[in-house]
Amino acid sequence: MEANANHLPNGEAAAAAVLDSPTNPMVTPLLTDLYQYTMAYAYWKGGKHNDRAVFDLYFRRNPFGGEYTIFAGLEECIKFIANFKMNEGEISFIRQSLSGSCEDGFFDYLRELDCSEVEAYAIPEGSVVFPKVPLMRIEGPVAVVQLLETPLLNLVNFASLVATNAARHRFVAGKSKMLLEFGLRRAQGPDGAITASKYCYIGGFDATSNVAAGRLFGIPLRGTHSHAFVSSFMSPDEIIEKSLKSADGSTICEDFVSLVQTWLNKIKAVQWSKSSNGDTNHSELTAFTSYALAFPDNFLALVDTYDVMRSGIPNFCAVALALNDLGYKAGGIRLDSGDLAYLSSEARKFFQSIEKEFCIPGFGKTNITASNDLNEETLDALNKQGHEVDSYGIGTYLVTCYSQAALGCVFKLVEINGEPRIKLSEDVSKVSIPCKKRSYRLYGKEGYPLVDIMTRENEPIPKVGERILCRHPFNESKRAFVVPQKVDDLLKCYWPGTSGKPRVELPSLNETRERCINQLEQMRPDHMRRLNPTPYKVSVSAKLYDFIHFLWLNEAPVGELQ
Amino acid sequence: MEANANHLPNGEAAAAAVLDSPTNPMVTPLLTDLYQYTMAYAYWKGGKHNDRAVFDLYFRRNPFGGEYTIFAGLEECIKFIANFKMNEGEISFIRQSLSGSCEDGFFDYLRELDCSEVEAYAIPEGSVVFPKVPLMRIEGPVAVVQLLETPLLNLVNFASLVATNAARHRFVAGKSKMLLEFGLRRAQGPDGAITASKYCYIGGFDATSNVAAGRLFGIPLRGTHSHAFVSSFMSPDEIIEKSLKSADGSTICEDFVSLVQTWLNKIKAVQWSKSSNGDTNHSELTAFTSYALAFPDNFLALVDTYDVMRSGIPNFCAVALALNDLGYKAGGIRLDSGDLAYLSSEARKFFQSIEKEFCIPGFGKTNITASNDLNEETLDALNKQGHEVDSYGIGTYLVTCYSQAALGCVFKLVEINGEPRIKLSEDVSKVSIPCKKRSYRLYGKEGYPLVDIMTRENEPIPKVGERILCRHPFNESKRAFVVPQKVDDLLKCYWPGTSGKPRVELPSLNETRERCINQLEQMRPDHMRRLNPTPYKVSVSAKLYDFIHFLWLNEAPVGELQ
Repeated sequence: MEANANHLPNGEAAAAAVLDSPTNPMVTPLLTDLYQYTMAYAYWKGGKHNDRAVFDLYFRRNPFGGEYTIFAGLEECIKFIANFKMNEGEISFIRQSLSGSCEDGFFDYLRELDCSEVEAYAIPEGSVVFPKVPLMRIEGPVAVVQLLETPLLNLVNFASLVATNAARHRFVAGKSKMLLEFGLRRAQGPDGAITASKYCYIGGFDATSNVAAGRLFGIPLRGTHSHAFVSSFMSPDEIIEKSLKSADGSTICEDFVSLVQTWLNKIKAVQWSKSSNGDTNHSELTAFTSYALAFPDNFLALVDTYDVMRSGIPNFCAVALALNDLGYKAGGIRLDSGDLAYLSSEARKFFQSIEKEFCIPGFGKTNITASNDLNEETLDALNKQGHEVDSYGIGTYLVTCYSQAALGCVFKLVEINGEPRIKLSEDVSKVSIPCKKRSYRLYGKEGYPLVDIMTRENEPIPKVGERILCRHPFNESKRAFVVPQKVDDLLKCYWPGTSGKPRVELPSLNETRERCINQLEQMRPDHMRRLNPTPYKVSVSAKLYDFIHFLWLNEAPVGELQ
Repeated sequence: MEANANHLPNGEAAAAAVLDSPTNPMVTPLLTDLYQYTMAYAYWKGGKHNDRAVFDLYFRRNPFGGEYTIFAGLEECIKFIANFKMNEGEISFIRQSLSGSCEDGFFDYLRELDCSEVEAYAIPEGSVVFPKVPLMRIEGPVAVVQLLETPLLNLVNFASLVATNAARHRFVAGKSKMLLEFGLRRAQGPDGAITASKYCYIGGFDATSNVAAGRLFGIPLRGTHSHAFVSSFMSPDEIIEKSLKSADGSTICEDFVSLVQTWLNKIKAVQWSKSSNGDTNHSELTAFTSYALAFPDNFLALVDTYDVMRSGIPNFCAVALALNDLGYKAGGIRLDSGDLAYLSSEARKFFQSIEKEFCIPGFGKTNITASNDLNEETLDALNKQGHEVDSYGIGTYLVTCYSQAALGCVFKLVEINGEPRIKLSEDVSKVSIPCKKRSYRLYGKEGYPLVDIMTRENEPIPKVGERILCRHPFNESKRAFVVPQKVDDLLKCYWPGTSGKPRVELPSLNETRERCINQLEQMRPDHMRRLNPTPYKVSVSAKLYDFIHFLWLNEAPVGELQ
């Protein structure tokens, strides 16, 4: 698989990207629920397959107890729509999966089917979004739009969930920390991992350990070594090639192993008399030395295989100081167990005393990465305790969205052949908002987004400086006048089909990431806080409100109490 | 992508399957952590890359608060190992991702690299397994085995987690219920879904809605229609082709729409005078009629779009009875909201009264499927309340493993060049069990598995009828003598490399599913119960126990209290 070109910043590459297939070649028209095909057949059999339908894709509740969500997955959806076409093998599998009585004409219909009659509107990927407001509006022949339902939901649900999770981790960690996604081994399958790597980057992470994701999306890669590397070494005798050229190439140290040992002895002499019997682990020292010989300009060491303060840190410092003699600057350490607040602070003190003792400017600032089952709560706890961690490697809890493993996006029919439709439920939060709609974000005087409002398609666009009534869609007493200082029309056309409408190009991955980071910064802080955030308001116009309730009464059966 | 042949039952297909690539084409040698490549370089640079290493893959704790786990993902792992080979594009990406100072020889080494020197041993897929006991033991040159670490963990972790989740849902639902996996739209990405479909089937589900998974693995498919299908219809006038041939082809009903209406009127007359104003929803009735015209021999109806008892059920019955007139038997209903215990019981009563009233034998047994955010707890609650559900469609909670979204399998070095290695930790549960080991399952008099025991490689195999001491690996006071009535050698050779050892063929998907179901049934019931299950015992031999503690003392630094 070659890397996609879709993160190239120029317009041409973006245009080409629309024609690329989705990243995962398993995303085909068969990646859908069987009932989409049984329905397609029933529509076709009844001559209804080309009825013009409008569906909204939206979610009902923000994840993780928060009051915001990041919309992600759009690029993959548009690529899927652009390439929607069934091959003979797929059609023949559908034929054998449906009832034997299905007519041949249906399979001829499937053979010709594509998304040329479909129009896809969406909020730009990486936007901060809210419940009930359509993330995507898909219009087109009802049968084909139904076939799109499941793959679009699949591509948006987890992407948005994990991007939101990443944004929440960034919020707690703070802007200055480096955030590394280390989740590949614990993710939900191969592209549970690749998807997580992509959308964590959009949500504000800086790098990933996942090489495949680095290649596919151009995400920066990070990694050092594991405990197994450390314990695979037994003694310094294993190192045969001991020479190391200095960073500037001017000299060669013939026995780097001895230089490391010399430094370890110096460190022992000044640092250690009080706190240990003085022996660090030999296999660890050998592993560090060997790793430094391989990567002298990027020496990073995992220091907790045996004992962080009695072995890992002094061994790291001995190698780092030997490298320093040859003009190399060590990359830093990684802590993967224990009390990270305490150990990072102790390690920092150790580095600072080395800086002072041996006059190595900057050594006290050596980078400390922490990576032991971190999540929002542990990051928050570390902040409260005080720590000296510079970078976080976050895996399991981030990529599997452990605290809430699913987002509940739905795809609801809101109009067919120009007729608005509603889906009722005894649970009001599950009643759909009918009609082909437009949606806007209205900004207040302080520049913050104030409220999102949905209107009917033919209503006038809200105007800056003009008062507009925003109503809660289902609670008649909740309404407020707003005089917007700025109005964003939320839905853009990403796939116009043959409508002739102008198409918005898909941005690069880095542009999407920047949009996400900028939009998060624009939000009023009380919507963003971890505990008890203020809900952001989502509303409908007076006209849409009235119509919802007219249709509701019209469709619901009248009960009879007995 | 063509369907894999690996679920074909005959031996030849299974042999060919070993040579197939993993199901997801994104599973390549780059689907690994960057540090596996930095370590590979460091090993290579130090001339250590061919050191013979032994790694164990195991987990530390059972998921979902239970006391057992299903091992799954092995077939994909073996396919990955069998096909491990880097192409030029991959090698060139590694070159650009590593430090510029890496020597060319390393990339020549990568170019030649494959798993011919690797041996892979594993417990058969679909087995019931327990913490600490190696699920897989991988032996081979340390650099290549390290490169395998991350993909093997990725392929086993979620597969085993979701298979276990499926088995737990089956346990609560009971053997007689049909279990359908409906999770595609909420899964963690495209193959979060496809992976879930495969391993839920292994764990005891009967079918999936996921067409792609049906095609790839031969899993039975199920599906009906959605709420959108119901609300896409407006009035009976939309149905143009109203004729329907009888099931035996002998007659044609020219106006099936009227026949349905006639039945609805009859039902109204007898069923309804007391409980409703009598009007069912027209768009729903039209949708059901239209669906029945498309699938007369498999009419299934989602009955909760407007109102289950006032509209959905009578509408379904009207269509089902019209079909009955023509010799067709309706498939059943699906409930997707509301109180499933109550609604299923009311629906059952309605069906039974129709059977009685109109003398339609068997109508009272019409299949009822329920599918609203089900999980272990809601299934258990339904059982306690009493219900009439025959089939469950389970999605979000099943496929995302919502109650615990990750399994923590690890991959630890246990021996290198014949020298046992240990990984220490202040947390005893994280200390690895060193040595290349063998493991056995010992069975007691009642036929139940009693205990798993790990021994050193060269110890004699436990014998039936011969007393053996089983020790807890880390708690010296926990030990017991066992006289096994049966002994299973757990690890089989699935990939012998060039060792010349015989290779166990990969079984078909259905064979793996049967193994899983059989092994679950063999377990002593107290290990399996949902609440407070009894832990199954995992032990080591006396010889291994002594060696673990010798090595531990040898490697751990001695502290000094001050």
